[in-house]
Amino acid sequence: MPKPIEFYFDFSSPYGYLAAQRVNEMVAEYDREVAWRPFLLGTLFKTTGAKPLLDIPMKGDYARHDLARSARLFGTPFELPERFPFMSVAACRAFYWLAESDEAAAVELAQGLYDRAFGEGGSITEPKEVAEVAEDQGHDPQEVLAALQDPRIKDLLRSEVDTAIEKGVFGSPFFIADGEPFWGYDRLEDLGIWLDTGGW
Amino acid sequence: MPKPIEFYFDFSSPYGYLAAQRVNEMVAEYDREVAWRPFLLGTLFKTTGAKPLLDIPMKGDYARHDLARSARLFGTPFELPERFPFMSVAACRAFYWLAESDEAAAVELAQGLYDRAFGEGGSITEPKEVAEVAEDQGHDPQEVLAALQDPRIKDLLRSEVDTAIEKGVFGSPFFIADGEPFWGYDRLEDLGIWLDTGGW
Repeated sequence: MPKPIEFYFDFSSPYGYLAAQRVNEMVAEYDREVAWRPFLLGTLFKTTGAKPLLDIPMKGDYARHDLARSARLFGTPFELPERFPFMSVAACRAFYWLAESDEAAAVELAQGLYDRAFGEGGSITEPKEVAEVAEDQGHDPQEVLAALQDPRIKDLLRSEVDTAIEKGVFGSPFFIADGEPFWGYDRLEDLGIWLDTGGW
Repeated sequence: MPKPIEFYFDFSSPYGYLAAQRVNEMVAEYDREVAWRPFLLGTLFKTTGAKPLLDIPMKGDYARHDLARSARLFGTPFELPERFPFMSVAACRAFYWLAESDEAAAVELAQGLYDRAFGEGGSITEPKEVAEVAEDQGHDPQEVLAALQDPRIKDLLRSEVDTAIEKGVFGSPFFIADGEPFWGYDRLEDLGIWLDTGGW
């Protein structure tokens, strides 16, 4: 059984949201699975000197236009949250906490969080907002809130972010297929060709 | 007759080179033509705060890998020039000088310049290097060298760069199809779908 395709994303990344809508289905076409790996881009922005995309003159306006257009192409609901970019540390911690016991439930939570943020333009920054989404999926919100403060979970996330950086991940979404890196929503097609052909 | 698709690029842009290999053929599939529009990204980098891609930590390494991989996918020869990024003002001026009398010859010159820079990893920075490429295509190198110093041609290029900025062009390659902007080599597929469907 080959290793799953690693899917790195920041919960605050709208192109990550678009990728999240399609990556599982696309990868499944090639009988492969996806390992979802949320992380925090903020740390990396210090390394690469990148600024939040939508704050950049000219590029920001284009990105707003392109995001809406890219969402429409696949019929994906899309709304930019009022507060953007936003802190996504609570969402990340909740994911890794849940993934310890149930990876599939953690992916479902990630999808629910992304839907609230970019499908409905809502907020997933505050711990209680993350707990609400988890509660809607049948998890105990008090357990979630406790996990978000758990030093062990905090360390777990830190270690995941370190691993991402070690692997050369510097943007969101970012895919790694058998060691081969693909950066950006617009590299999903290339990833598909790579999986289909075994590389070129 | 609909307007041609505008293809903005910087001669110093490797993704612009990759786009240049495919754009004419791809757009012709939809019975449309391409207006080649070289410009100078340097001015815009001041506005957007962008740095040369390959100089950015992590992103630079990835870009080198991705460029070679993207070139291989379509069987395009690719070699990064030793001096990179490089000044492309002479190449731009030569293009617009030639385009005044013969647009098709100017496109051929652009292709020749791009081939020398990124197909062979050569230099096209110096006026005499640009004149050499032009001479290989049957143009008088002395005429080219004179044109590169002609104040009228200098103004013509300045005006083209201003027009690009007014149109919101901030990167290379950048396509505009009936007012719709597409930024990046990896948006060529979207441009094709747009031309095929009339937009979505």
